[in-house]
Amino acid sequence: MTVQTISDYQGYFLEYLSEKTLEKEPKNLYEPISYILNLGGKRLRPTLTLLTAEIFGSSYKESLDAALAVEIFHNFSLIHDDIMDDAPLRRGKETVHEKWDINTGILSGDAMLINAYQLFENYEGETFRKLAKLFTKTAIEVCEGQQYDVDFETRDDVTIDEYLKMIEYKTAVLVGAAMQMGAIIADASEDCASSIYDFGRLLGLAFQLQDDYLDAFGNPETFGKQVGGDIIENKKTFLYLKAIEFSSKEERKQLEGLFSLNPEDPSEKIQMVKDFFESTGAKERTRLEIASYTQKAFDVLEAISISSEKKNVLRVFGEQLMNRSV
Amino acid sequence: MTVQTISDYQGYFLEYLSEKTLEKEPKNLYEPISYILNLGGKRLRPTLTLLTAEIFGSSYKESLDAALAVEIFHNFSLIHDDIMDDAPLRRGKETVHEKWDINTGILSGDAMLINAYQLFENYEGETFRKLAKLFTKTAIEVCEGQQYDVDFETRDDVTIDEYLKMIEYKTAVLVGAAMQMGAIIADASEDCASSIYDFGRLLGLAFQLQDDYLDAFGNPETFGKQVGGDIIENKKTFLYLKAIEFSSKEERKQLEGLFSLNPEDPSEKIQMVKDFFESTGAKERTRLEIASYTQKAFDVLEAISISSEKKNVLRVFGEQLMNRSV
Repeated sequence: MTVQTISDYQGYFLEYLSEKTLEKEPKNLYEPISYILNLGGKRLRPTLTLLTAEIFGSSYKESLDAALAVEIFHNFSLIHDDIMDDAPLRRGKETVHEKWDINTGILSGDAMLINAYQLFENYEGETFRKLAKLFTKTAIEVCEGQQYDVDFETRDDVTIDEYLKMIEYKTAVLVGAAMQMGAIIADASEDCASSIYDFGRLLGLAFQLQDDYLDAFGNPETFGKQVGGDIIENKKTFLYLKAIEFSSKEERKQLEGLFSLNPEDPSEKIQMVKDFFESTGAKERTRLEIASYTQKAFDVLEAISISSEKKNVLRVFGEQLMNRSV
Repeated sequence: MTVQTISDYQGYFLEYLSEKTLEKEPKNLYEPISYILNLGGKRLRPTLTLLTAEIFGSSYKESLDAALAVEIFHNFSLIHDDIMDDAPLRRGKETVHEKWDINTGILSGDAMLINAYQLFENYEGETFRKLAKLFTKTAIEVCEGQQYDVDFETRDDVTIDEYLKMIEYKTAVLVGAAMQMGAIIADASEDCASSIYDFGRLLGLAFQLQDDYLDAFGNPETFGKQVGGDIIENKKTFLYLKAIEFSSKEERKQLEGLFSLNPEDPSEKIQMVKDFFESTGAKERTRLEIASYTQKAFDVLEAISISSEKKNVLRVFGEQLMNRSV
């Protein structure tokens, strides 16, 4: 059996999502849910669930509900995170708490988290149990990751290891879980399920480091978001933490100084920080780290007992992710 | 097998709760959870789970994790509701978002909702599935009930039926579910499980109407909370909606007028509204309604095939709830 392309699966997911968007009462609870679910996005996680189900021999159709649960959970976390970050925009549109209010964002988010669990009820026996258990473990880690992210804002002693654990929890584990769910539904062996989780988790880590990198060094014409956003917000990303680590005492003082400023026109600050990232070697080191996590993911993939054709689909997908400009 | 007293089960639950209170990292996520779980309260719902498990022939010990899940979910909803209501106090102590901040309240609440699901993993096979499914259905209804409650604040055409549905969802279904979980764990028949749910749900409705009643007509010396709190906040409770229904056109105008005021010293307003509740017959009608839901609960109880001794424990419990002054 051959698997289809990523954009095929993305299409199947979008079709299912539009079928499942319900207009239920009370509408003040359910309208914001439809709104956020239809704001767009790459639909990376649910697409991976469908692809993985087919890679392990099931039909993508069997995994649509799990894929939807993953996407609903991801959007739940976006609503609550946007409240916490006081973010006005999401994918270029008003965030839920801006369009409605904070209370609506809290309650609609809660309902989405519960709704995600509800979707697993479409699976029987052990499959239901395995999906719910994996989902719970992942969801708790996402909350812990978000808490670490919040905590790091007011700490100046964050280590690289702590940072990596934070992005693993906040971002990478859900990518791993999205893939493992496909494997669970296809009744793959424990070994396969756990390896594909690791593949997704490692790719998720590379993906997030790439996000940090592009935020500073992306091409403004193709990046989509404002280049330098993390620098403006003084976010202690991998680039920043590595730059601090590689700095002399004097450089460190200067960089920390720049990260205590909030100038009205940030362009000079952005340029100076980027120069630091480059001169300290943090830029190059981040590229290496992204390549290293991607390679680790590919090593895990190599050892999984699936056809080389299927491995190739996943490898090409990983390479595309790492060469993206958005 | 004889069942023990309510206060015995309450004691067992409190002991289990204190054993299970973990000091985990990140502490900014988990400290607020310990805080709210240790603020006290009647522990009504988890106690009912333990009692029901024993009534249907299991040991209360088997149901401790489900009871804890119910209590954690209840406290999750309190944290998020308190943010939405901007409430400074809960059980006489600072609310979570007051003691920490709104972001902490949101995220710690989210983690509690997930943690509740996690506790069901201590049950096997069909029991796990039934508990998680009942929990999900109930949790969605609680969110919908909260949304209706929020919606009603800005509506002046709320019907009695809508109000009853709101309190059923927001409060009563969790009491029913707490009891049904005990029945599920004891592997009671579907009939018994569904009847005990109805018993709990009906008692929950009576309990909430009693709450409305005591808020206006409770004895200030024993009530614990400020008498007239709902009147101060212009809450459209059962008492108010019935008073409006039973009013002449002229009285209705006066009562609606009173419910548009927020005087600095509310004592006169409270007295006038209470006089309306009494003169229109709404007070008496509320008492009758409470008695009627309690009686419906007892009728359901009567038909359950358990010993009359066990029925008696539940009946005495129901009677105590209805004669409470707190």
